[in-house]
Amino acid sequence: ATAVVEDDIDDGVLGIGRDESAKSIYMVSDGTGWTAEHSVNAALGQFEHCLVDRGCAVNTHLFNGIDDLDRLIEIIKQAAKEGALVLYTLADPSMAEATKKACELWGVPSTDVLRPTIEAIASHIGVAPSGIPRSSPSRKGQLTEDYFRRIEAIDFTIKQDDGAQPQNLNRAHIVLVGVSRTGKTPLSIYLAQKGYKVANVPIVMGVNLPKSLFEIDQDKIFGLTINPVVLQAIRKARAKALGFHGHKSNYAEMEHVRGELDHANQIFSTHPIWPVIEVTGKAIEESAAVVVRIFHDRKQKCAMPRISKRY
Amino acid sequence: ATAVVEDDIDDGVLGIGRDESAKSIYMVSDGTGWTAEHSVNAALGQFEHCLVDRGCAVNTHLFNGIDDLDRLIEIIKQAAKEGALVLYTLADPSMAEATKKACELWGVPSTDVLRPTIEAIASHIGVAPSGIPRSSPSRKGQLTEDYFRRIEAIDFTIKQDDGAQPQNLNRAHIVLVGVSRTGKTPLSIYLAQKGYKVANVPIVMGVNLPKSLFEIDQDKIFGLTINPVVLQAIRKARAKALGFHGHKSNYAEMEHVRGELDHANQIFSTHPIWPVIEVTGKAIEESAAVVVRIFHDRKQKCAMPRISKRY
Ligand SMILES: Nc1ncnc2c1ncn2[C@@H]1O[C@H](COP(=O)(O)O)[C@@H](O)[C@H]1O
Ligand SMILES: Nc1ncnc2c1ncn2[C@@H]1O[C@H](COP(=O)(O)O)[C@@H](O)[C@H]1O
Ligand SMILES: [Mg+2]
Ligand SMILES: [Mg+2]
Repeated sequence: ATAVVEDDIDDGVLGIGRDESAKSIYMVSDGTGWTAEHSVNAALGQFEHCLVDRGCAVNTHLFNGIDDLDRLIEIIKQAAKEGALVLYTLADPSMAEATKKACELWGVPSTDVLRPTIEAIASHIGVAPSGIPRSSPSRKGQLTEDYFRRIEAIDFTIKQDDGAQPQNLNRAHIVLVGVSRTGKTPLSIYLAQKGYKVANVPIVMGVNLPKSLFEIDQDKIFGLTINPVVLQAIRKARAKALGFHGHKSNYAEMEHVRGELDHANQIFSTHPIWPVIEVTGKAIEESAAVVVRIFHDRKQKCAMPRISKRY
Repeated sequence: ATAVVEDDIDDGVLGIGRDESAKSIYMVSDGTGWTAEHSVNAALGQFEHCLVDRGCAVNTHLFNGIDDLDRLIEIIKQAAKEGALVLYTLADPSMAEATKKACELWGVPSTDVLRPTIEAIASHIGVAPSGIPRSSPSRKGQLTEDYFRRIEAIDFTIKQDDGAQPQNLNRAHIVLVGVSRTGKTPLSIYLAQKGYKVANVPIVMGVNLPKSLFEIDQDKIFGLTINPVVLQAIRKARAKALGFHGHKSNYAEMEHVRGELDHANQIFSTHPIWPVIEVTGKAIEESAAVVVRIFHDRKQKCAMPRISKRY
């Protein structure tokens, strides 16, 4: 997916309509729309085989904060014109019903993305859903413990980026260790958003790792490793983006890349308690899933590994 | 939701089972599990009325990376023992079918979270889903343009946090301006994850805003404002977390908080082109939804506001 932002303005926003064969998906939510977007994104993964070679093309259009019937109807009319599929999450049953009916009337295919999940939970816990959208003024959003926890985690994680403040490593929940461009920063940030305080420590040849790394609970340290060919490609792209021309070139040079990864793997092998995450070809959220799984497995005494939360 | 991490270890992981009345929700995915988690999280918003006062209690348990039948069956058996609801996302139709059958056999309620969305897309674009989980070795994950864009956005955004490097404001897609603790940092990071390069600039009384702020495209600047009572509560919590005792106390003092917000609102009113986002009671992702919506509305010439992406 490519968000249409500044860089793309040339071939961007106005170009969206030009690919005549592209199919449109409308996502409509009374809230942020991120649930529909996340689901559509995952679902589109099931069509990668035709999306990557442009055998099929899809444009998604997100309409968020849709909490009145007039705008809803306007959107569905437009969907009919564009021949779009409408995927929606609307908490108010009468809005959801209106969408269904209007789509049927105008021959627009539509699916309620969240309703089956809400209904399964309702009958499981024996409580009726409120039907109140998150944006409703009658729903006073409260700042939860969770809110503060996450903000603290993000603040902490930013401050600990790239080996900063090694004296605070003991305060991290998770410490990531790896050579440059193994994705330590984005992975740290992803985990921070989930409420984990993360520190990341770079492995650089000729530079000692901070002493504190070996003094903290070794259970929370994770190594990151990657295929050298892929790492070289990433570093080349990086060097280009940073405008390195020629100088500092050994950063992306194959011998150097291999040497650094060997060095990292040697460190990892002397610390077998550190799980080593292979990040090659993994999206950030996939690496995050592995880290979180191992983290919780280690904290738990129970037989069946799982990641648990209270609500 | 409260992730069970270090801080909670006391009443934490082992305590999960102790609340006998809490209902269990199992989330099972062959991938990261984040889609199921996101959907369940949104769906549980519909039961806030009973969750907040503990009229009902829910524990969620995430099982990710489940790509073989044996582990799947083991999990379902455990769900039967615990009286859990099983919500799943499994790309392989035979795994999904096995889950459905096993759940029926053992009387476990179950729902496929993503299937309706996948099927709606399949029939809309006229292509059959691959049935291949994202974790499958046959699916070579490629580093997309999108991957690099996001990583660059995160790197940029971290470097621009808290007014750093004002000479780079012109390179940001979005610039957030507001007083301390209006959520500039977490909001910036949230947007960065979506691929936007964000800079945030603090408003501090007695400190001039950087000159560059007034020289860049004014269309990309957003003000953040908040109710003073709520801001004071956040700052008090912050001051406590940082261990301020007495000194620097005017930071959270009501007169000071009001004065600073008045100062900010005055700045905003002299720059009416900056949209002002009211963040009071909003979750970070809700503020992000508003920013992204306005951002795209401004970039677009078309009549109906929407946030579009190409796939
Ligand atoms: N905290 C919440 N309270 C009530 N409804 C929510 C909450 N979070 C999400 N929802 C609903 O879940 C659906 C998806 O939300 P969103 O991801 O914000 O588009 C929308 O219908 C929202 O109104
Ligand atoms: N890029 C992708 N390619 C194939 N399947 C995917 C992709 N992303 C998500 N999925 C599938 O969508 C479901 C939800 O994914 P996840 O959010 O990782 O649990 C799982 O069945 C995944 O296998
Ligand atoms: Mg980094
Ligand atoms: Mg900040």
